[in-house]
Amino acid sequence: MIDFLTQCRAIVGDAYVLDAPADMAPFLTDWRGRFTGKALAVLRPGSVEQVAALVRVCVSQRVALVPQGGNTGLVLGSVPDASGAQVVLSLARLNSIRQIDPVNRTMTVDAGCILQQIQEAAAAEGCLFPLSLAAEGSCTIGGNLSTNAGGTAVLRYGNTRELCLGLEVVTPQGEVWSGLRGLRKDNTGYDLRDLFIGAEGTLGIITGAVLKLYPQPKASITALAALPSPAAAQQLLVLMQDYCGSSLTGFELMSRYCLELVAEQFPQLPKPFVTPHAHYVLLELSSSESERHAVGLLEQAIGAALERDVINDAVVATSVAQSAGLWQLREHIPLAQAKAGKNIKHDISLPVSRIADFIAVTGPQLDAAFPGCQLVCFGHLGDGNLHYNVAPPVGISNEDFLANQEKVNRVVHDSVVSFGGSISAEHGIGALKRDELAHYKSAVELNMMRAIKAALDPLGIMNPGKIL
Amino acid sequence: MIDFLTQCRAIVGDAYVLDAPADMAPFLTDWRGRFTGKALAVLRPGSVEQVAALVRVCVSQRVALVPQGGNTGLVLGSVPDASGAQVVLSLARLNSIRQIDPVNRTMTVDAGCILQQIQEAAAAEGCLFPLSLAAEGSCTIGGNLSTNAGGTAVLRYGNTRELCLGLEVVTPQGEVWSGLRGLRKDNTGYDLRDLFIGAEGTLGIITGAVLKLYPQPKASITALAALPSPAAAQQLLVLMQDYCGSSLTGFELMSRYCLELVAEQFPQLPKPFVTPHAHYVLLELSSSESERHAVGLLEQAIGAALERDVINDAVVATSVAQSAGLWQLREHIPLAQAKAGKNIKHDISLPVSRIADFIAVTGPQLDAAFPGCQLVCFGHLGDGNLHYNVAPPVGISNEDFLANQEKVNRVVHDSVVSFGGSISAEHGIGALKRDELAHYKSAVELNMMRAIKAALDPLGIMNPGKIL
Repeated sequence: MIDFLTQCRAIVGDAYVLDAPADMAPFLTDWRGRFTGKALAVLRPGSVEQVAALVRVCVSQRVALVPQGGNTGLVLGSVPDASGAQVVLSLARLNSIRQIDPVNRTMTVDAGCILQQIQEAAAAEGCLFPLSLAAEGSCTIGGNLSTNAGGTAVLRYGNTRELCLGLEVVTPQGEVWSGLRGLRKDNTGYDLRDLFIGAEGTLGIITGAVLKLYPQPKASITALAALPSPAAAQQLLVLMQDYCGSSLTGFELMSRYCLELVAEQFPQLPKPFVTPHAHYVLLELSSSESERHAVGLLEQAIGAALERDVINDAVVATSVAQSAGLWQLREHIPLAQAKAGKNIKHDISLPVSRIADFIAVTGPQLDAAFPGCQLVCFGHLGDGNLHYNVAPPVGISNEDFLANQEKVNRVVHDSVVSFGGSISAEHGIGALKRDELAHYKSAVELNMMRAIKAALDPLGIMNPGKIL
Repeated sequence: MIDFLTQCRAIVGDAYVLDAPADMAPFLTDWRGRFTGKALAVLRPGSVEQVAALVRVCVSQRVALVPQGGNTGLVLGSVPDASGAQVVLSLARLNSIRQIDPVNRTMTVDAGCILQQIQEAAAAEGCLFPLSLAAEGSCTIGGNLSTNAGGTAVLRYGNTRELCLGLEVVTPQGEVWSGLRGLRKDNTGYDLRDLFIGAEGTLGIITGAVLKLYPQPKASITALAALPSPAAAQQLLVLMQDYCGSSLTGFELMSRYCLELVAEQFPQLPKPFVTPHAHYVLLELSSSESERHAVGLLEQAIGAALERDVINDAVVATSVAQSAGLWQLREHIPLAQAKAGKNIKHDISLPVSRIADFIAVTGPQLDAAFPGCQLVCFGHLGDGNLHYNVAPPVGISNEDFLANQEKVNRVVHDSVVSFGGSISAEHGIGALKRDELAHYKSAVELNMMRAIKAALDPLGIMNPGKIL
């Protein structure tokens, strides 16, 4: 049998089969730097046909492969394990925008396109590709699709799943499935597209996609509302949607502690209110008509919220700079946390109607188990998605507190599940939450997932050890 | 072994196991009356547990079952075959609205709820459940989900798939999968929900669902535009969406021949234009603000379309009655066709940007093969979905022309596929289009579907002969 790497080199060329440790290093450590795996090699194909040919070599030699895009994932889904027996298959060289169709409002792209590149290409045609998240300058659309990424525009436009009409996938047999359909309606058999989306590369390798585009909004406007409680935030969401419908494009909850942390770590950022409030909601409205329309709509809704005592106070940004300043407060929460020290993070979702109850119940449970622990609670309340992070009590070191990670996870995730929520809202499962998934999912659901995995990837060569 | 029907009676009671021919008759013939199957029995369970217990009996005795909702499907998906060996499992008795959560904007329902019942329950809470289609007084949500039904609100709200957050399913093993999650974000493993949606009962039986609700629009307004061509209709769609964004909720194309057919068969209906035009588009705008806002937006967009010569003329409905009158023109096309005689129907979709080219190419192809045949071309252009029906030439009988059905299908479907379209936009595959599916889908895609079917339903007892 010809040596595995020799066969790979024959397909992609010597330059694109990396096996020197220094060359492989950037592909082996996860984004947050928590784990470094080992690999037999890093393969960098330049075409869909090369991806398929490499998979066929992996099949024939029973080599497991780990598909990788921008390697910005948060759950150890795109790095190899410690065995050194797996190969990383990087999609980064497949980075062409294949076609833009402004009438159909679709864009066909390679999986390795950077999200920001796609946003810019859409904007150049007067269109909007709404997916937006912190890693957009580095993450690839293939990774976004494989993890069904969320971000800040889900309230109006949905997750990555809702932004994709068609896929091209290399199967675990090394065949190419051409499902690049740009259709809003297509009821011809099982929904394979949505099965590959969110499968984290365990069922096949996404190599291309047809994405939905939207008209660019003519204007958007931001405001910060101050509220007494998460329950008031729930009421505000209902009120805002009743007044503004789909013009409401952002609705982000932040606790007082979050903004105090930001003010402490980044004193140069704006302080919109003189006196502190228990909670804040960052609101964004977009209008397909005009800035005047957006402002009028927002003022009307905020007026109603004040009148009904749903909110205590509000500031409306009157310039692009002010608007950016308000968003910076939200975006600096994770950065402020990082500067303040480590914490135990949870990416959870709940029915919107249960968020206040979840917060009311879970905080005291954590405080009983870990007296004095600090909660950094913020997130996309409009989607029911909270980043619910637990920081050490004053005087306890990061290391000592992080030793409690499993116990903290159990308190938070048990509570989430008891309120009908999810232990992974937008980050996925990867290797990091695999045991948590097995702990919380029913046997019926796990068995169906395993049956599908075995049916499509009977050799188990696609990203083994992730999800299942 | 105890007799099969005896076991079924022990589960649901004698009254709910029908085996007298007269009792079974309504369950055996499809909605359009084209096929009548035979059944061993019709089972009418009254709870999810009874559904699961019946499936376990079917498993133990290897009896195949055909799930059925309102039996309004158009592709022979919900009636048994001619063998007399299958049972029909009717979900009609599972018809409770389980819960409405106006803050989370979700509703949890039994699969047997009639669509109209769901619309009304949502409206009673001040919410909108947007799914709307001709059969809404008879069809059930379980059937809508199993066929991923489309309808008239897809442009703004998506297909049934996009309106569902969670499912409860009885598996082919007779277990209950409780996936009734009311979450906007949930990335915990494979997307089983979307696999069951659109699977037409071949992978399991949907017994319950969590549906998305929306704020009720404050006003909606209708207009009819006259245009020179389908290409102008494509341009109009882009223009309307640029001006109105998601306020554009309806965009229906109708050819001159369609409206002439309606005028001939239903002379009492309004005739909005004095002189005829080649094509028409029915426009609907909905506003989350006010009627004044909707009218202003529509007039502005129509003004721009007239100014740019995209449309020739337009009438805007100035009352609810006028609005209903315009919609009646659209809704009476299928009725006018039925009165005029039979025709060969196609439920197709295309990229919106290819519709004009498809129409320009396919008409002459059909005319060359079947000189003088009449095209009844209308549909949800905003979704790329056309109902492209071919009626006999003058002087040719229905029967003689319908003998050409397979040849006509081949011309139309070959053309659809050559333009990147779908041979089933919103009706599904069922038994009717199974051979067409096998003809057009790639081996890679068919093999993946078969592998999934075999993995989840290894005994092949779930609605065999449908889709695959």
